[in-house]
Amino acid sequence: MKELDWIAVDWGTSHLRLWGMSGDQPLWQAQSADGMGGLDRAGFEPTLLRALGTRLQGPTPVIACGMVGARQGWAEAGYAAVPCVPLAAGLTQAQTDDPRLTVHIAGGVKQNSPADVMRGEETQIAGFLALNPGFDGIVCLPGSHSKWAEISAGEIVSFRTFMTGEMFAALCRHTVLRHSLDGEGWDAPSFAEAVSETLSRPERMASALFGIRAEALLNDLGPAQARARLSGLLIGAELAAARPYWLGRDVAVIGSDAVAAPYVTALGLQGLSAIQTDNDAMVLKGLARARALVTETKH
Amino acid sequence: MKELDWIAVDWGTSHLRLWGMSGDQPLWQAQSADGMGGLDRAGFEPTLLRALGTRLQGPTPVIACGMVGARQGWAEAGYAAVPCVPLAAGLTQAQTDDPRLTVHIAGGVKQNSPADVMRGEETQIAGFLALNPGFDGIVCLPGSHSKWAEISAGEIVSFRTFMTGEMFAALCRHTVLRHSLDGEGWDAPSFAEAVSETLSRPERMASALFGIRAEALLNDLGPAQARARLSGLLIGAELAAARPYWLGRDVAVIGSDAVAAPYVTALGLQGLSAIQTDNDAMVLKGLARARALVTETKH
Repeated sequence: MKELDWIAVDWGTSHLRLWGMSGDQPLWQAQSADGMGGLDRAGFEPTLLRALGTRLQGPTPVIACGMVGARQGWAEAGYAAVPCVPLAAGLTQAQTDDPRLTVHIAGGVKQNSPADVMRGEETQIAGFLALNPGFDGIVCLPGSHSKWAEISAGEIVSFRTFMTGEMFAALCRHTVLRHSLDGEGWDAPSFAEAVSETLSRPERMASALFGIRAEALLNDLGPAQARARLSGLLIGAELAAARPYWLGRDVAVIGSDAVAAPYVTALGLQGLSAIQTDNDAMVLKGLARARALVTETKH
Repeated sequence: MKELDWIAVDWGTSHLRLWGMSGDQPLWQAQSADGMGGLDRAGFEPTLLRALGTRLQGPTPVIACGMVGARQGWAEAGYAAVPCVPLAAGLTQAQTDDPRLTVHIAGGVKQNSPADVMRGEETQIAGFLALNPGFDGIVCLPGSHSKWAEISAGEIVSFRTFMTGEMFAALCRHTVLRHSLDGEGWDAPSFAEAVSETLSRPERMASALFGIRAEALLNDLGPAQARARLSGLLIGAELAAARPYWLGRDVAVIGSDAVAAPYVTALGLQGLSAIQTDNDAMVLKGLARARALVTETKH
Protein backbone atom coordinates (compact mmCIF):
# COMPACT_ATOMS: atom_id res chain seq x y z
CA MET A 1 0.00 0.00 0.00
CA LYS A 2 1.16 3.52 -0.79
CA GLU A 3 2.23 5.71 2.07
CA LEU A 4 0.39 8.84 3.24
CA ASP A 5 2.61 11.84 2.40
CA TRP A 6 0.29 14.74 3.05
CA ILE A 7 -3.31 15.78 3.42
CA ALA A 8 -5.14 17.96 0.89
CA VAL A 9 -7.94 20.11 2.29
CA ASP A 10 -10.59 22.18 0.49
CA TRP A 11 -12.31 24.14 3.26
CA GLY A 12 -15.07 26.45 2.11
CA THR A 13 -17.82 28.41 3.83
CA SER A 14 -20.21 25.47 3.95
CA HIS A 15 -18.10 22.34 3.45
CA LEU A 16 -14.90 20.59 4.42
CA ARG A 17 -13.35 18.06 2.03
CA LEU A 18 -10.09 16.26 2.56
CA TRP A 19 -7.96 13.71 0.81
CA GLY A 20 -5.11 11.54 2.00
CA MET A 21 -2.37 11.94 -0.61
CA SER A 22 0.60 9.91 -1.75
CA GLY A 23 2.52 12.27 -4.03
CA ASP A 24 -0.11 13.50 -6.50
CA GLN A 25 -2.39 10.49 -5.93
CA PRO A 26 -5.36 10.49 -3.57
CA LEU A 27 -5.52 7.44 -1.25
CA TRP A 28 -8.85 8.23 0.42
CA GLN A 29 -11.39 11.02 0.68
CA ALA A 30 -13.56 12.38 3.49
CA GLN A 31 -15.98 15.25 3.79
CA SER A 32 -18.29 16.97 6.22
CA ALA A 33 -20.63 19.95 6.45
CA ASP A 34 -18.32 21.70 8.95
CA GLY A 35 -17.70 24.74 6.77
CA MET A 36 -15.70 27.70 8.07
CA GLY A 37 -18.95 29.70 8.23
CA GLY A 38 -20.00 27.80 11.35
CA LEU A 39 -16.64 27.74 13.15
CA ASP A 40 -14.71 30.17 15.30
CA ARG A 41 -10.93 30.22 15.28
CA ALA A 42 -10.59 27.63 18.05
CA GLY A 43 -12.92 25.25 16.21
CA PHE A 44 -10.79 24.48 13.16
CA GLU A 45 -8.20 22.13 14.67
CA PRO A 46 -10.67 19.87 16.55
CA THR A 47 -12.88 19.75 13.45
CA LEU A 48 -9.99 18.70 11.24
CA LEU A 49 -8.80 16.10 13.78
CA ARG A 50 -12.33 14.68 14.02
CA ALA A 51 -12.59 14.46 10.22
CA LEU A 52 -9.19 12.72 10.03
CA GLY A 53 -9.94 10.26 12.82
CA THR A 54 -7.57 7.30 12.99
CA ARG A 55 -6.22 8.07 9.51
CA LEU A 56 -3.80 10.57 11.06
CA GLN A 57 -0.86 8.57 12.40
CA GLY A 58 2.48 10.30 12.53
CA PRO A 59 3.32 13.93 11.72
CA THR A 60 1.69 14.88 8.40
CA PRO A 61 1.68 18.17 6.52
CA VAL A 62 -1.73 19.58 5.63
CA ILE A 63 -2.18 21.89 2.64
CA ALA A 64 -5.49 23.78 2.63
CA CYS A 65 -7.28 26.27 0.41
CA GLY A 66 -10.55 28.21 0.54
CA MET A 67 -12.33 30.36 3.09
CA VAL A 68 -10.33 28.68 5.86
CA GLY A 69 -7.78 31.40 5.00
CA ALA A 70 -10.23 34.30 5.41
CA ARG A 71 -10.08 36.88 8.20
CA GLN A 72 -12.71 34.84 10.10
CA GLY A 73 -10.94 31.56 9.24
CA TRP A 74 -8.23 29.52 10.93
CA ALA A 75 -5.45 31.89 9.95
CA GLU A 76 -5.67 34.87 7.65
CA ALA A 77 -3.76 34.13 4.46
CA GLY A 78 -3.16 37.29 2.42
CA TYR A 79 -4.16 38.15 -1.12
CA ALA A 80 -1.87 38.69 -4.10
CA ALA A 81 -3.04 41.38 -6.53
CA VAL A 82 -3.63 40.66 -10.22
CA PRO A 83 -1.85 40.32 -12.56
CA CYS A 84 -0.14 37.43 -10.78
CA VAL A 85 0.35 33.67 -10.90
CA PRO A 86 -2.49 31.94 -9.05
CA LEU A 87 -0.52 31.03 -5.91
CA ALA A 88 1.48 34.26 -5.75
CA ALA A 89 0.25 34.99 -2.21
CA GLY A 90 2.13 31.93 -0.94
CA LEU A 91 1.00 29.96 2.10
CA THR A 92 0.40 30.92 5.71
CA GLN A 93 1.00 28.50 8.56
CA ALA A 94 -1.90 28.11 11.00
CA GLN A 95 -1.37 27.59 14.71
CA THR A 96 -1.86 24.00 15.89
CA ASP A 97 -1.67 22.23 19.23
CA ASP A 98 -1.49 18.64 18.01
CA PRO A 99 2.17 17.88 17.17
CA ARG A 100 1.09 15.60 14.32
CA LEU A 101 -0.33 18.55 12.34
CA THR A 102 1.46 21.21 10.30
CA VAL A 103 -1.14 23.27 8.45
CA HIS A 104 -0.38 25.57 5.51
CA ILE A 105 -3.16 27.66 3.97
CA ALA A 106 -3.00 29.05 0.43
CA GLY A 107 -3.58 32.80 0.11
CA GLY A 108 -6.16 34.28 -2.26
CA VAL A 109 -6.09 36.69 -5.16
CA LYS A 110 -7.51 40.20 -5.20
CA GLN A 111 -8.21 42.84 -7.81
CA ASN A 112 -8.12 46.46 -6.75
CA SER A 113 -10.35 47.93 -9.44
CA PRO A 114 -13.06 46.88 -9.81
CA ALA A 115 -12.68 45.49 -6.29
CA ASP A 116 -12.88 41.70 -6.26
CA VAL A 117 -11.51 38.74 -4.31
CA MET A 118 -11.14 34.98 -4.64
CA ARG A 119 -10.21 32.27 -2.14
CA GLY A 120 -9.98 28.66 -3.24
CA GLU A 121 -10.51 29.32 -6.94
CA GLU A 122 -6.87 30.42 -7.30
CA THR A 123 -5.88 26.87 -6.28
CA GLN A 124 -8.23 25.34 -8.85
CA ILE A 125 -6.76 27.65 -11.49
CA ALA A 126 -3.25 26.66 -10.40
CA GLY A 127 -4.24 23.02 -10.87
CA PHE A 128 -5.78 23.74 -14.26
CA LEU A 129 -2.62 25.54 -15.41
CA ALA A 130 -0.41 22.73 -14.13
CA LEU A 131 -2.35 20.37 -16.40
CA ASN A 132 -2.69 22.89 -19.27
CA PRO A 133 0.52 24.93 -19.06
CA GLY A 134 0.09 26.79 -22.34
CA PHE A 135 -3.53 27.80 -21.81
CA ASP A 136 -4.40 31.31 -22.92
CA GLY A 137 -8.06 32.19 -22.47
CA ILE A 138 -10.86 32.28 -19.92
CA VAL A 139 -11.46 30.06 -16.92
CA CYS A 140 -15.02 30.04 -15.58
CA LEU A 141 -15.61 28.60 -12.08
CA PRO A 142 -19.35 28.47 -11.47
CA GLY A 143 -20.64 28.19 -7.92
CA SER A 144 -22.12 30.24 -5.08
CA HIS A 145 -19.81 33.04 -6.20
CA SER A 146 -19.04 32.29 -9.84
CA LYS A 147 -15.70 33.55 -11.11
CA TRP A 148 -14.58 34.43 -14.62
CA ALA A 149 -10.82 34.83 -14.91
CA GLU A 150 -8.68 35.87 -17.84
CA ILE A 151 -5.50 33.79 -18.06
CA SER A 152 -2.45 34.75 -20.06
CA ALA A 153 1.17 33.57 -19.82
CA GLY A 154 0.39 31.56 -16.69
CA GLU A 155 -1.04 34.58 -14.83
CA ILE A 156 -4.49 35.68 -13.76
CA VAL A 157 -4.81 38.99 -15.61
CA SER A 158 -8.25 40.04 -14.33
CA PHE A 159 -11.36 38.42 -12.90
CA ARG A 160 -14.94 39.10 -11.93
CA THR A 161 -17.29 37.47 -9.42
CA PHE A 162 -21.04 36.95 -9.85
CA MET A 163 -23.35 35.99 -6.98
CA THR A 164 -25.39 33.73 -9.25
CA GLY A 165 -25.31 30.53 -7.16
CA GLU A 166 -26.02 32.29 -3.90
CA MET A 167 -28.85 34.29 -5.48
CA PHE A 168 -30.33 31.07 -6.86
CA ALA A 169 -30.26 29.51 -3.38
CA ALA A 170 -31.67 32.61 -1.65
CA LEU A 171 -34.46 32.99 -4.23
CA CYS A 172 -35.34 29.26 -4.01
CA ARG A 173 -35.47 29.17 -0.23
CA HIS A 174 -36.38 32.62 1.00
CA THR A 175 -38.82 34.19 -1.47
CA VAL A 176 -42.31 33.52 -2.80
CA LEU A 177 -40.69 31.46 -5.58
CA ARG A 178 -40.21 28.57 -3.15
CA HIS A 179 -43.92 27.72 -3.64
CA SER A 180 -43.33 27.21 -7.36
CA LEU A 181 -40.08 25.24 -7.07
CA ASP A 182 -41.25 22.46 -4.79
CA GLY A 183 -40.46 19.36 -6.83
CA GLU A 184 -37.75 17.68 -8.86
CA GLY A 185 -36.74 17.72 -12.48
CA TRP A 186 -35.34 19.95 -15.18
CA ASP A 187 -36.75 21.28 -18.42
CA ALA A 188 -34.07 21.99 -21.03
CA PRO A 189 -36.20 24.15 -23.38
CA SER A 190 -37.27 26.41 -20.47
CA PHE A 191 -33.62 26.81 -19.51
CA ALA A 192 -32.57 27.73 -23.06
CA GLU A 193 -35.40 30.23 -23.46
CA ALA A 194 -34.63 31.91 -20.13
CA VAL A 195 -30.88 32.17 -20.88
CA SER A 196 -31.66 33.87 -24.16
CA GLU A 197 -34.13 36.24 -22.48
CA THR A 198 -31.80 37.78 -19.88
CA LEU A 199 -28.71 37.52 -22.09
CA SER A 200 -30.36 39.82 -24.62
CA ARG A 201 -32.44 41.88 -22.15
CA PRO A 202 -30.77 41.64 -18.73
CA GLU A 203 -33.01 44.39 -17.28
CA ARG A 204 -35.92 41.97 -17.51
CA MET A 205 -34.64 39.81 -14.69
CA ALA A 206 -36.50 41.39 -11.74
CA SER A 207 -39.88 41.13 -13.46
CA ALA A 208 -39.12 37.74 -15.06
CA LEU A 209 -38.42 36.32 -11.60
CA PHE A 210 -41.88 37.20 -10.30
CA GLY A 211 -43.22 35.99 -13.65
CA ILE A 212 -42.24 32.46 -12.58
CA ARG A 213 -44.63 32.75 -9.65
CA ALA A 214 -47.37 34.31 -11.77
CA GLU A 215 -47.01 31.62 -14.47
CA ALA A 216 -47.32 28.95 -11.78
CA LEU A 217 -50.48 30.58 -10.37
CA LEU A 218 -52.19 31.37 -13.67
CA ASN A 219 -50.82 28.82 -16.13
CA ASP A 220 -49.74 25.85 -13.99
CA LEU A 221 -46.03 26.21 -14.70
CA GLY A 222 -44.50 23.07 -13.17
CA PRO A 223 -41.53 22.92 -10.78
CA ALA A 224 -39.15 21.41 -13.34
CA GLN A 225 -39.84 24.25 -15.77
CA ALA A 226 -39.76 26.81 -12.96
CA ARG A 227 -36.37 25.63 -11.68
CA ALA A 228 -34.83 25.48 -15.15
CA ARG A 229 -36.27 28.91 -15.91
CA LEU A 230 -34.89 30.45 -12.69
CA SER A 231 -31.45 28.96 -13.37
CA GLY A 232 -31.58 30.15 -16.98
CA LEU A 233 -32.57 33.71 -16.08
CA LEU A 234 -29.69 34.01 -13.60
CA ILE A 235 -27.08 32.38 -15.85
CA GLY A 236 -28.26 34.43 -18.84
CA ALA A 237 -27.79 37.64 -16.85
CA GLU A 238 -24.34 36.44 -15.75
CA LEU A 239 -23.36 35.68 -19.35
CA ALA A 240 -24.59 39.15 -20.38
CA ALA A 241 -22.35 40.76 -17.78
CA ALA A 242 -19.41 38.43 -18.48
CA ARG A 243 -19.64 38.83 -22.26
CA PRO A 244 -16.33 40.78 -22.46
CA TYR A 245 -14.72 37.68 -20.94
CA TRP A 246 -16.09 34.88 -23.09
CA LEU A 247 -16.92 36.43 -26.44
CA GLY A 248 -14.60 34.94 -29.06
CA ARG A 249 -12.32 33.32 -26.47
CA ASP A 250 -11.35 29.80 -25.43
CA VAL A 251 -13.30 29.01 -22.28
CA ALA A 252 -12.66 26.25 -19.73
CA VAL A 253 -15.40 25.63 -17.17
CA ILE A 254 -14.15 24.10 -13.90
CA GLY A 255 -16.81 22.54 -11.70
CA SER A 256 -18.76 19.49 -10.68
CA ASP A 257 -21.09 18.28 -13.40
CA ALA A 258 -24.28 19.56 -11.73
CA VAL A 259 -22.91 23.09 -11.51
CA ALA A 260 -20.78 23.27 -14.66
CA ALA A 261 -23.10 21.58 -17.18
CA PRO A 262 -25.68 24.42 -17.32
CA TYR A 263 -22.89 26.92 -18.04
CA VAL A 264 -21.45 24.72 -20.81
CA THR A 265 -24.98 24.37 -22.23
CA ALA A 266 -25.66 28.11 -22.02
CA LEU A 267 -22.35 28.95 -23.72
CA GLY A 268 -23.11 26.30 -26.34
CA LEU A 269 -26.36 28.11 -27.11
CA GLN A 270 -24.21 31.14 -27.98
CA GLY A 271 -22.17 29.00 -30.37
CA LEU A 272 -19.25 28.67 -27.98
CA SER A 273 -17.79 25.22 -27.34
CA ALA A 274 -16.41 25.41 -23.79
CA ILE A 275 -14.32 22.62 -22.31
CA GLN A 276 -15.53 21.22 -18.99
CA THR A 277 -13.01 20.02 -16.45
CA ASP A 278 -13.41 18.20 -13.19
CA ASN A 279 -13.44 20.23 -10.04
CA ASP A 280 -11.75 17.77 -7.66
CA ALA A 281 -8.90 16.99 -10.04
CA MET A 282 -8.10 20.73 -10.29
CA VAL A 283 -8.24 21.23 -6.51
CA LEU A 284 -5.90 18.30 -5.87
CA LYS A 285 -3.45 19.31 -8.58
CA GLY A 286 -3.53 22.89 -7.29
CA LEU A 287 -2.93 21.83 -3.69
CA ALA A 288 -0.03 19.65 -4.89
CA ARG A 289 1.45 22.77 -6.51
CA ALA A 290 0.93 24.69 -3.26
CA ARG A 291 2.68 21.90 -1.36
CA ALA A 292 5.65 22.18 -3.71
CA LEU A 293 5.87 25.89 -2.80
CA VAL A 294 6.08 25.03 0.91
CA THR A 295 8.77 22.44 0.25
CA GLU A 296 10.75 24.87 -1.95
CA THR A 297 10.63 27.57 0.73
CA LYS A 298 11.98 25.19 3.34
CA HIS A 299 15.04 24.14 1.38
CA MET B 1 -67.95 59.04 20.50
CA LYS B 2 -68.44 57.82 16.99
CA GLU B 3 -69.88 54.37 16.48
CA LEU B 4 -67.97 51.41 15.02
CA ASP B 5 -69.53 50.66 11.61
CA TRP B 6 -67.10 48.19 10.17
CA ILE B 7 -63.56 46.85 10.39
CA ALA B 8 -60.94 47.42 7.69
CA VAL B 9 -58.30 44.69 7.35
CA ASP B 10 -55.07 44.64 5.37
CA TRP B 11 -53.82 41.05 5.66
CA GLY B 12 -50.61 40.30 3.82
CA THR B 13 -48.12 37.45 3.83
CA SER B 14 -46.22 38.74 6.85
CA HIS B 15 -48.53 41.21 8.61
CA LEU B 16 -52.08 41.83 9.79
CA ARG B 17 -53.30 45.39 10.19
CA LEU B 18 -56.82 46.40 11.14
CA TRP B 19 -58.74 49.55 11.78
CA GLY B 20 -62.06 50.19 13.49
CA MET B 21 -64.00 52.40 11.10
CA SER B 22 -66.86 54.86 11.44
CA GLY B 23 -67.85 55.59 7.86
CA ASP B 24 -64.57 56.59 6.16
CA GLN B 25 -62.90 57.55 9.45
CA PRO B 26 -60.59 55.27 11.43
CA LEU B 27 -61.38 55.11 15.17
CA TRP B 28 -58.49 52.89 16.21
CA GLN B 29 -55.76 50.76 14.70
CA ALA B 30 -54.19 47.44 15.63
CA GLN B 31 -51.54 45.25 14.04
CA SER B 32 -49.70 41.99 14.50
CA ALA B 33 -47.13 39.82 12.77
CA ASP B 34 -49.72 37.08 12.12
CA GLY B 35 -49.42 37.21 8.35
CA MET B 36 -51.26 34.72 6.16
CA GLY B 37 -47.94 33.03 5.41
CA GLY B 38 -47.90 31.45 8.85
CA LEU B 39 -51.57 30.44 9.05
CA ASP B 40 -53.64 27.55 7.78
CA ARG B 41 -57.27 28.02 6.83
CA ALA B 42 -58.58 27.28 10.33
CA GLY B 43 -56.20 29.83 11.85
CA PHE B 44 -57.63 33.01 10.33
CA GLU B 45 -60.78 33.46 12.41
CA PRO B 46 -59.14 32.92 15.84
CA THR B 47 -56.27 35.22 14.81
CA LEU B 48 -58.67 37.99 13.80
CA LEU B 49 -60.73 37.56 16.98
CA ARG B 50 -57.58 37.74 19.10
CA ALA B 51 -56.46 40.91 17.31
CA LEU B 52 -59.90 42.49 17.79
CA GLY B 53 -60.16 41.51 21.47
CA THR B 54 -62.84 43.38 23.37
CA ARG B 55 -63.22 45.94 20.58
CA LEU B 56 -65.59 43.56 18.81
CA GLN B 57 -69.01 43.98 20.45
CA GLY B 58 -72.06 43.30 18.28
CA PRO B 59 -72.17 41.98 14.70
CA THR B 60 -69.69 43.94 12.57
CA PRO B 61 -68.82 43.57 8.89
CA VAL B 62 -65.15 43.06 8.09
CA ILE B 63 -63.71 44.14 4.72
CA ALA B 64 -60.30 42.63 3.99
CA CYS B 65 -57.73 42.78 1.21
CA GLY B 66 -54.37 41.17 0.50
CA MET B 67 -52.99 37.64 0.55
CA VAL B 68 -55.80 36.58 2.90
CA GLY B 69 -57.70 36.06 -0.38
CA ALA B 70 -55.06 33.77 -1.93
CA ARG B 71 -55.52 30.05 -2.56
CA GLN B 72 -53.70 29.34 0.73
CA GLY B 73 -55.64 32.12 2.51
CA TRP B 74 -58.90 32.26 4.42
CA ALA B 75 -61.05 32.05 1.29
CA GLU B 76 -59.90 32.18 -2.30
CA ALA B 77 -61.07 35.45 -3.86
CA GLY B 78 -60.79 35.38 -7.66
CA TYR B 79 -58.83 37.61 -10.01
CA ALA B 80 -60.26 40.01 -12.58
CA ALA B 81 -58.20 40.32 -15.78
CA VAL B 82 -56.83 43.64 -17.03
CA PRO B 83 -58.03 45.97 -18.41
CA CYS B 84 -60.47 46.41 -15.53
CA VAL B 85 -61.39 48.71 -12.67
CA PRO B 86 -59.31 47.82 -9.59
CA LEU B 87 -62.07 46.05 -7.66
CA ALA B 88 -63.64 44.33 -10.68
CA ALA B 89 -63.22 40.89 -9.09
CA GLY B 90 -65.72 41.85 -6.35
CA LEU B 91 -65.61 40.37 -2.88
CA THR B 92 -65.76 36.81 -1.57
CA GLN B 93 -67.33 35.95 1.76
CA ALA B 94 -65.20 33.82 4.08
CA GLN B 95 -66.66 31.17 6.36
CA THR B 96 -66.92 32.20 10.00
CA ASP B 97 -68.12 30.53 13.19
CA ASP B 98 -68.45 33.58 15.41
CA PRO B 99 -71.88 35.18 14.72
CA ARG B 100 -70.44 38.66 15.27
CA LEU B 101 -68.22 38.39 12.19
CA THR B 102 -69.13 38.75 8.50
CA VAL B 103 -65.93 38.75 6.47
CA HIS B 104 -65.66 39.92 2.84
CA ILE B 105 -62.36 39.62 0.99
CA ALA B 106 -61.50 41.72 -2.07
CA GLY B 107 -60.39 39.75 -5.14
CA GLY B 108 -57.14 40.50 -6.98
CA VAL B 109 -56.19 41.49 -10.50
CA LYS B 110 -54.37 39.34 -13.04
CA GLN B 111 -52.71 39.87 -16.39
CA ASN B 112 -52.60 36.94 -18.77
CA SER B 113 -49.63 38.01 -20.88
CA PRO B 114 -47.09 38.56 -19.57
CA ALA B 115 -48.47 36.56 -16.65
CA ASP B 116 -48.76 38.67 -13.53
CA VAL B 117 -50.93 38.96 -10.42
CA MET B 118 -51.67 41.41 -7.62
CA ARG B 119 -53.53 41.05 -4.33
CA GLY B 120 -53.96 44.03 -2.05
CA GLU B 121 -52.46 46.60 -4.41
CA GLU B 122 -55.75 46.72 -6.38
CA THR B 123 -57.39 48.04 -3.18
CA GLN B 124 -54.70 50.70 -2.74
CA ILE B 125 -55.17 51.71 -6.38
CA ALA B 126 -58.95 51.85 -5.85
CA GLY B 127 -58.35 54.18 -2.90
CA PHE B 128 -55.94 56.31 -4.92
CA LEU B 129 -58.46 56.63 -7.77
CA ALA B 130 -61.28 57.47 -5.34
CA LEU B 131 -59.16 60.40 -4.18
CA ASN B 132 -57.82 61.25 -7.66
CA PRO B 133 -60.69 60.33 -9.98
CA GLY B 134 -59.27 61.88 -13.16
CA PHE B 135 -55.78 60.41 -12.80
CA ASP B 136 -54.22 59.17 -16.02
CA GLY B 137 -50.70 57.87 -15.59
CA ILE B 138 -48.60 55.39 -13.64
CA VAL B 139 -49.02 54.14 -10.10
CA CYS B 140 -45.93 52.62 -8.50
CA LEU B 141 -46.40 50.54 -5.33
CA PRO B 142 -42.98 49.62 -3.99
CA GLY B 143 -42.63 46.74 -1.55
CA SER B 144 -41.65 43.08 -1.36
CA HIS B 145 -43.22 42.68 -4.78
CA SER B 146 -43.18 46.16 -6.31
CA LYS B 147 -45.93 46.90 -8.82
CA TRP B 148 -46.03 49.40 -11.67
CA ALA B 149 -49.53 49.88 -13.05
CA GLU B 150 -50.74 51.93 -15.98
CA ILE B 151 -54.01 53.69 -15.17
CA SER B 152 -56.35 55.15 -17.76
CA ALA B 153 -60.05 56.08 -17.54
CA GLY B 154 -60.29 54.60 -14.06
CA GLU B 155 -58.99 51.19 -15.17
CA ILE B 156 -55.78 49.26 -14.65
CA VAL B 157 -54.60 48.83 -18.25
CA SER B 158 -51.48 46.75 -17.59
CA PHE B 159 -49.05 46.12 -14.75
CA ARG B 160 -45.73 44.50 -13.92
CA THR B 161 -44.30 43.09 -10.71
CA PHE B 162 -40.65 43.25 -9.61
CA MET B 163 -39.25 41.18 -6.74
CA THR B 164 -37.04 44.04 -5.61
CA GLY B 165 -38.05 44.18 -1.93
CA GLU B 166 -37.93 40.45 -1.45
CA MET B 167 -34.56 40.23 -3.23
CA PHE B 168 -33.21 43.01 -1.00
CA ALA B 169 -34.32 41.09 2.10
CA ALA B 170 -32.99 37.73 0.84
CA LEU B 171 -29.63 39.25 -0.16
CA CYS B 172 -29.32 41.08 3.19
CA ARG B 173 -30.12 38.06 5.30
CA HIS B 174 -29.10 34.98 3.39
CA THR B 175 -25.96 35.76 1.40
CA VAL B 176 -22.37 36.78 2.07
CA LEU B 177 -23.51 40.42 1.87
CA ARG B 178 -24.92 40.16 5.40
CA HIS B 179 -21.35 40.57 6.72
CA SER B 180 -21.07 43.95 5.00
CA LEU B 181 -24.52 45.29 5.98
CA ASP B 182 -24.28 44.86 9.72
CA GLY B 183 -24.96 48.39 10.96
CA GLU B 184 -27.28 51.34 10.59
CA GLY B 185 -27.39 54.39 8.36
CA TRP B 186 -27.78 55.45 4.77
CA ASP B 187 -25.46 57.14 2.32
CA ALA B 188 -27.33 59.19 -0.30
CA PRO B 189 -24.43 59.60 -2.79
CA SER B 190 -23.83 55.82 -2.79
CA PHE B 191 -27.52 55.27 -3.50
CA ALA B 192 -27.55 57.76 -6.39
CA GLU B 193 -24.41 56.30 -7.95
CA ALA B 194 -25.76 52.74 -7.72
CA VAL B 195 -29.14 53.68 -9.24
CA SER B 196 -27.38 55.26 -12.18
CA GLU B 197 -25.11 52.23 -12.59
CA THR B 198 -27.77 49.54 -13.04
CA LEU B 199 -30.26 51.86 -14.74
CA SER B 200 -27.77 52.39 -17.56
CA ARG B 201 -26.09 48.95 -17.39
CA PRO B 202 -28.57 46.52 -15.78
CA GLU B 203 -26.43 43.51 -16.68
CA ARG B 204 -23.85 44.68 -14.16
CA MET B 205 -26.06 43.80 -11.22
CA ALA B 206 -24.79 40.27 -10.48
CA SER B 207 -21.15 41.39 -10.38
CA ALA B 208 -21.92 44.71 -8.67
CA LEU B 209 -23.61 42.81 -5.83
CA PHE B 210 -20.46 40.82 -5.03
CA GLY B 211 -18.53 44.05 -5.52
CA ILE B 212 -20.17 45.33 -2.31
CA ARG B 213 -18.56 42.48 -0.41
CA ALA B 214 -15.21 42.95 -2.15
CA GLU B 215 -15.25 46.72 -1.48
CA ALA B 216 -15.94 46.02 2.18
CA LEU B 217 -13.04 43.55 2.38
CA LEU B 218 -10.49 45.54 0.39
CA ASN B 219 -11.54 49.18 0.81
CA ASP B 220 -13.48 49.27 4.12
CA LEU B 221 -16.84 50.12 2.54
CA GLY B 222 -19.08 50.87 5.55
CA PRO B 223 -22.52 49.39 6.21
CA ALA B 224 -24.40 52.65 5.49
CA GLN B 225 -22.77 52.91 2.07
CA ALA B 226 -23.20 49.17 1.47
CA ARG B 227 -26.92 49.24 2.30
CA ALA B 228 -27.59 52.35 0.19
CA ARG B 229 -25.58 50.81 -2.64
CA LEU B 230 -27.48 47.49 -2.51
CA SER B 231 -30.81 49.35 -2.49
CA GLY B 232 -29.68 51.57 -5.35
CA LEU B 233 -28.48 48.68 -7.51
CA LEU B 234 -31.82 46.87 -7.14
CA ILE B 235 -34.00 49.96 -7.65
CA GLY B 236 -31.89 51.07 -10.61
CA ALA B 237 -32.40 47.67 -12.26
CA GLU B 238 -36.13 47.90 -11.54
CA LEU B 239 -36.29 51.38 -13.08
CA ALA B 240 -34.42 50.08 -16.15
CA ALA B 241 -37.00 47.33 -16.61
CA ALA B 242 -39.96 49.61 -15.79
CA ARG B 243 -38.77 52.41 -18.09
CA PRO B 244 -41.66 51.89 -20.57
CA TYR B 245 -43.95 52.63 -17.63
CA TRP B 246 -42.47 55.81 -16.17
CA LEU B 247 -40.66 57.53 -19.03
CA GLY B 248 -42.46 60.81 -19.76
CA ARG B 249 -45.48 59.92 -17.62
CA ASP B 250 -47.12 61.22 -14.45
CA VAL B 251 -46.09 58.86 -11.66
CA ALA B 252 -47.67 58.44 -8.22
CA VAL B 253 -45.74 56.37 -5.68
CA ILE B 254 -47.93 54.76 -3.00
CA GLY B 255 -46.11 53.52 0.08
CA SER B 256 -44.86 54.21 3.56
CA ASP B 257 -42.13 56.81 3.65
CA ALA B 258 -39.31 54.30 4.28
CA VAL B 259 -40.23 52.28 1.20
CA ALA B 260 -41.49 55.01 -1.15
CA ALA B 261 -38.87 57.71 -0.55
CA PRO B 262 -35.98 55.87 -2.29
CA TYR B 263 -38.18 55.39 -5.38
CA VAL B 264 -39.16 59.08 -5.43
CA THR B 265 -35.48 59.98 -5.04
CA ALA B 266 -34.41 57.59 -7.80
CA LEU B 267 -37.07 58.91 -10.19
CA GLY B 268 -36.04 62.46 -9.26
CA LEU B 269 -32.48 61.62 -10.35
CA GLN B 270 -33.96 60.87 -13.79
CA GLY B 271 -35.61 64.30 -13.82
CA LEU B 272 -39.04 62.93 -12.99
CA SER B 273 -41.03 64.56 -10.19
CA ALA B 274 -43.19 61.75 -8.80
CA ILE B 275 -45.93 62.41 -6.25
CA GLN B 276 -45.74 60.35 -3.06
CA THR B 277 -48.96 59.31 -1.33
CA ASP B 278 -49.58 57.67 1.98
CA ASN B 279 -50.04 53.92 2.02
CA ASP B 280 -52.56 53.62 4.88
CA ALA B 281 -54.83 56.36 3.55
CA MET B 282 -55.06 54.52 0.20
CA VAL B 283 -55.76 51.15 1.83
CA LEU B 284 -58.54 52.60 3.99
CA LYS B 285 -60.14 54.55 1.15
CA GLY B 286 -59.92 51.44 -1.06
CA LEU B 287 -61.47 49.19 1.58
CA ALA B 288 -64.26 51.78 2.02
CA ARG B 289 -64.90 51.49 -1.74
CA ALA B 290 -64.93 47.72 -1.44
CA ARG B 291 -67.42 48.00 1.42
CA ALA B 292 -69.68 50.11 -0.77
CA LEU B 293 -69.61 47.29 -3.36
CA VAL B 294 -70.82 44.80 -0.74
CA THR B 295 -73.61 47.17 0.36
CA GLU B 296 -74.67 47.84 -3.25
CA THR B 297 -74.84 44.12 -3.99
CA LYS B 298 -77.07 43.55 -1.00
CA HIS B 299 -79.71 46.16 -1.90
